[in-house]
Amino acid sequence: MSSAFDAVDVIRTKRDGGELSDAQIDWVIDAYTRGAVAEEQMAALAMAVLLRGLTPRELARWTAAMIASGERLDLSAVARPTSDKHSTGGVGDKITLPLAPLVAACGAAVPQLSGRGLGHTGGTLDKLESIPGWRAEVSNAAFIAQLNEVGAVVCAAGDELAPADRKLYALRDVTGTVESIPLIASSIMSKKIAEGSASLVLDVKVGTGAFMKDLTTARQLAETMVGLGTAHGVRTVALLTDMSTPLGRTAGNALEVTESVEVLAGGGPADVVELTLALAREMLAGAGLADVDPADALRDGRAMDTWRAMIAAQGGDPDAPLPTARERHVVAAPASGVLTRLDAYAVGVAAWRLGAGRARKEDPVSAAAGVVLLAKPGDRVQAGAPLLELHADDPSRFERALAALDGAFEVGGSASSAPLVIDRVG
Amino acid sequence: MSSAFDAVDVIRTKRDGGELSDAQIDWVIDAYTRGAVAEEQMAALAMAVLLRGLTPRELARWTAAMIASGERLDLSAVARPTSDKHSTGGVGDKITLPLAPLVAACGAAVPQLSGRGLGHTGGTLDKLESIPGWRAEVSNAAFIAQLNEVGAVVCAAGDELAPADRKLYALRDVTGTVESIPLIASSIMSKKIAEGSASLVLDVKVGTGAFMKDLTTARQLAETMVGLGTAHGVRTVALLTDMSTPLGRTAGNALEVTESVEVLAGGGPADVVELTLALAREMLAGAGLADVDPADALRDGRAMDTWRAMIAAQGGDPDAPLPTARERHVVAAPASGVLTRLDAYAVGVAAWRLGAGRARKEDPVSAAAGVVLLAKPGDRVQAGAPLLELHADDPSRFERALAALDGAFEVGGSASSAPLVIDRVG
Repeated sequence: MSSAFDAVDVIRTKRDGGELSDAQIDWVIDAYTRGAVAEEQMAALAMAVLLRGLTPRELARWTAAMIASGERLDLSAVARPTSDKHSTGGVGDKITLPLAPLVAACGAAVPQLSGRGLGHTGGTLDKLESIPGWRAEVSNAAFIAQLNEVGAVVCAAGDELAPADRKLYALRDVTGTVESIPLIASSIMSKKIAEGSASLVLDVKVGTGAFMKDLTTARQLAETMVGLGTAHGVRTVALLTDMSTPLGRTAGNALEVTESVEVLAGGGPADVVELTLALAREMLAGAGLADVDPADALRDGRAMDTWRAMIAAQGGDPDAPLPTARERHVVAAPASGVLTRLDAYAVGVAAWRLGAGRARKEDPVSAAAGVVLLAKPGDRVQAGAPLLELHADDPSRFERALAALDGAFEVGGSASSAPLVIDRVG
Repeated sequence: MSSAFDAVDVIRTKRDGGELSDAQIDWVIDAYTRGAVAEEQMAALAMAVLLRGLTPRELARWTAAMIASGERLDLSAVARPTSDKHSTGGVGDKITLPLAPLVAACGAAVPQLSGRGLGHTGGTLDKLESIPGWRAEVSNAAFIAQLNEVGAVVCAAGDELAPADRKLYALRDVTGTVESIPLIASSIMSKKIAEGSASLVLDVKVGTGAFMKDLTTARQLAETMVGLGTAHGVRTVALLTDMSTPLGRTAGNALEVTESVEVLAGGGPADVVELTLALAREMLAGAGLADVDPADALRDGRAMDTWRAMIAAQGGDPDAPLPTARERHVVAAPASGVLTRLDAYAVGVAAWRLGAGRARKEDPVSAAAGVVLLAKPGDRVQAGAPLLELHADDPSRFERALAALDGAFEVGGSASSAPLVIDRVG
């Protein structure tokens, strides 16, 4: 039986600036998922989409087709209102770790299917896997049970969610077709909508350490994703947040777990606390719990209790000591004054090169490697005093990490402080 | 050992409208040929090239890299001056068949590496293979010997000529990246330059039955190819010729061989004779034999003698009867008057559907199938008298061939005649 559609016709239509029909989009996404449209055909189409764009109607259908390529989780057996968060990725962005148990402690359920890191931004699962015993894989039944009993699950997405996106994401990574607002938005939103949460908060990062370097593009992505979520019946808002400086004082897997536990204990760096609370308030509002103040749950230990339950439910020992690096290297402040700049991208690349991240998805990561920031922009530093501490298992990694940090910080007279939460979309 | 280049960087550079360096082009073509750049990566790059273009410098280097992916034939052992012709493809375009022996009979050597047909235009090798015993495969030694002894070889290109183009051509066919002037020009010219001929005449066809539908694009392609040939030391000119009506009175493999033999015998349709002589004069001029009149060689039988020797040298029997179709179907003129239009594309598709062409490169073709035109534009026709004759081995093919011919011809008061050779570039 021959198909009514032809991949070359679909590619040519988009290539020549035309609009794809609903039926063409449904067909091409399904056929690609089944392998009837070849990788090289989808690569050509992805490049045509990147250069020609998708209309809002095309994008909505494309996203719907990606969702329809797999199952949409049914969370009707979860008694609590559901809310999830997605970050577009940043350096030192450990926010999910304190945020998920905090929101759960306030009465919502957080069903977070997460990923591993690739490139200079770390992955939430990589961070949690530095906790002895913790497992990223959770069955569907256990997922629902944990949401009801603990209120939060952070785990690996199964193969059944948006399999079209899984294939397309890997393809885009090797074909120079990542940097497309419609392709990024449909990738993120197809997975998040398929996950079944009733509400969603997007943390769209802007700055050197983020995927989006400028506010205009970030805002466009945020608006596109909020539109897609809303169209699929998911209450969706986005915060545009600064990623020109790393979040908190650590970038690295176990290092970020430790810092997250500090936040859950009522301490931790001010910026991590601020963003965690801002996102928690949005998630709670999305879940219909706008009157609950998450700061209380941090103060009174309920968030920490939920964290411990969440880790234990997936086999982790919340009291086990975390891996620490065998080798450390200190970077001293070059002058005395105020630290005016500490570049997020440079710190992300340094942590990656120290072993915290991976270059290929099959690479292992080091639990202990990373960067500790002993000062943040706005802090006073003394010439020769420690500014950064590099952690690695293998000292041969320091040289390339240090090269990444060349020119990454400045000491001057005074620092201008930019707001962490820049804007809200939705 | 890691490479200094990365496919994604190359793709992104072109995607974002940048210019590729010589080293990037050399690397990506070589790595693609070796399989180190994947098909999906080259597909994305081809789409970026199609939409962003190549500068003249990039195109020259791209073509050089395609040539360098294989060997360039050394024809220094051929005593005669060499000249070849390439047609961008048309319906009923059997010109190579009378042209190659004609030019050889006039003293030049014609080293033509040719291809099989795909889609609505026939392939020269498919036509010659309708001659019993004729073989398209010729060894390098036999190629040189035949050029010296007979003066003309039309045969299949070996795997060693521009292997990058072989891969890229197949890829473009399935990824909607065919219609790009730089990609078409580099594909044609890399093969033709690698073939080693000292001079080359390009027959760039324009019109419904051609790849280029409008004169502006055809001229652009012609100028691009002439520039590439010249830059590589090949004396190159192009004729822009009309392809709105099929050439001659036949479209189909054996049918076109029969018509070509009529031309070699001093007869044949006027348009085929005109174009054969026009191209022969250009080829002879390119070979330094501008003072030889090819019309003499048609008249006195030397071209026919060379044809017979050329066919026999590759195992063919020039006297063997050619396959004929078991079934015929006549299309009658709908009215009396002058045939004002007979669409080349429609006739090409009809011949293809009758079995003369292939949809996939592994499909067989019918030697006997095709279309005979009993009238050409400008001819008077009588209502109900035969206009076209469809030939097929399988009568079930008539219906779809007839559908292709719907609206393909018009009978009116008078026909405007357009010149066959529209312009010359070079």
